[in-house]
Amino acid sequence: MLFERITIIGVGLIGASFALAMKKYKLCKYIIGNGRNPENLKRAKEKGIIDSYEIEPETACINSDLILFSTPVGCFINIAKKIKPSLKTGAIVTDVGSVKGKLVKEMENLMPKGVTFVGAHPIAGSDKSGIESASAQLFSGAKCIITPSENTDKNALQQVIRIWETFGSEIRLIEPEEHDRIYALVSHLPHVIAYAIMNTIADVNSSYLKFSGQGFIDTTRIASSSPELWRDICILNKDNLLKSLDTFKKNLDKIIQHIRASDAISLEKDFAKARALRQGIGQD
Amino acid sequence: MLFERITIIGVGLIGASFALAMKKYKLCKYIIGNGRNPENLKRAKEKGIIDSYEIEPETACINSDLILFSTPVGCFINIAKKIKPSLKTGAIVTDVGSVKGKLVKEMENLMPKGVTFVGAHPIAGSDKSGIESASAQLFSGAKCIITPSENTDKNALQQVIRIWETFGSEIRLIEPEEHDRIYALVSHLPHVIAYAIMNTIADVNSSYLKFSGQGFIDTTRIASSSPELWRDICILNKDNLLKSLDTFKKNLDKIIQHIRASDAISLEKDFAKARALRQGIGQD
Repeated sequence: MLFERITIIGVGLIGASFALAMKKYKLCKYIIGNGRNPENLKRAKEKGIIDSYEIEPETACINSDLILFSTPVGCFINIAKKIKPSLKTGAIVTDVGSVKGKLVKEMENLMPKGVTFVGAHPIAGSDKSGIESASAQLFSGAKCIITPSENTDKNALQQVIRIWETFGSEIRLIEPEEHDRIYALVSHLPHVIAYAIMNTIADVNSSYLKFSGQGFIDTTRIASSSPELWRDICILNKDNLLKSLDTFKKNLDKIIQHIRASDAISLEKDFAKARALRQGIGQD
Repeated sequence: MLFERITIIGVGLIGASFALAMKKYKLCKYIIGNGRNPENLKRAKEKGIIDSYEIEPETACINSDLILFSTPVGCFINIAKKIKPSLKTGAIVTDVGSVKGKLVKEMENLMPKGVTFVGAHPIAGSDKSGIESASAQLFSGAKCIITPSENTDKNALQQVIRIWETFGSEIRLIEPEEHDRIYALVSHLPHVIAYAIMNTIADVNSSYLKFSGQGFIDTTRIASSSPELWRDICILNKDNLLKSLDTFKKNLDKIIQHIRASDAISLEKDFAKARALRQGIGQD
């Protein structure tokens, strides 16, 4: 039993899966849920995901040993300000957000003395949302990025690592700013592109969708992801994301030029370069 | 037994799967393979995919009742010119290419009197290639678009439909030009984008790939597709594809503007529109 009492702020797919995994592996005794939708919290309690719930985050955090932020990242700062006076000395605050960087610094600055923030980002979830899709197994075999800074308490860090290791995740420790550069490229960029592909279809002729094959289905799966979550991620990681988007547009324009010029040799070269890199994934 | 003798020009993933399915459903007696790589043809014969092979397409087509073009679409015209003198009266020429439109017209014009071209495009395959991945089941449950024109012989059309129905495909009859507008949008566009995403990663930092999750894996799966096939498809369908790419770039730029302006409301609206369309796939 690692923790007596934990609080989940934001009981959606990830928050509820975290709660289920904490119970499954007996890492805590009691789970309090918090969120803006009382109906959802009630349902989570009925399903045994949480033991009780509180409507106000400041109330939900009283006496908690571990507080998990699993709301959209845009809500973190406001909620952190609210719960600050209720946090008990020795508590650990952690999260599952897709943005770290400056957000980690701001969260750290909002912690009262004796409370440590440890940033974490499980690479799981994506197109499903809500507690109905939650599962204690969601994080098993998935990567989990943990982003300690020079201010992170070593003991708190070890406890957060222990949680994710117990869930069966593959832990990677990455510096918060580097995390944001990486995920701007390998996650935030493809999400924005998938959304843009769907809106392109809407502009041209959405009845064409019925002719799409597995390639289209796979390429656009992440366009089913939560607009609210992704709106926040894009804005909070905008500098890195805009840079990635700029490089993407240059690469796309290069291919467009080859197509316009019917330049078969350059086109095949560009495609072959892309394929070689894609086929290498998971082989090192 | 629908056909005595058939010729497969281009024994790759699709050509070999077609051959295996023809044998499985006993739709022909004898299969001749043709292609530019003798080693591959030898291997296809050893594996029982084809019964014999010929290095020259004009020899491979002598006395055949059905000729399948399953090479990259850019090779069709040259090969059609070569085989023209060997085609027997009553033969059906068909294909599995991803481009139709003008190509169907050109192929029709190259057919000798008494020989009909019937365009077909099974929506299967994509990132795998080569005979080792071939399967008689590849087309089962997949869509197959057949693109008759006003010149298509009705009897030949029925026989081609019969083949794909027997393979378990869902047949759709579409006019050749409309086929190319549809697939520029729902297939050729996402392929070009997937290639451009991989080249973006290469430009920024390909070591970041080891942090990618399932979303990235799915979004870029089709970047493993054959550069040679896709080079030809992009060039032969360039007018439609460039239009789709132009609309895509406008949609992407709209999202980029919202991100740059931290316009959360517009961003969420654009993402929600995309999600609604994506979630609707397969539900009508």
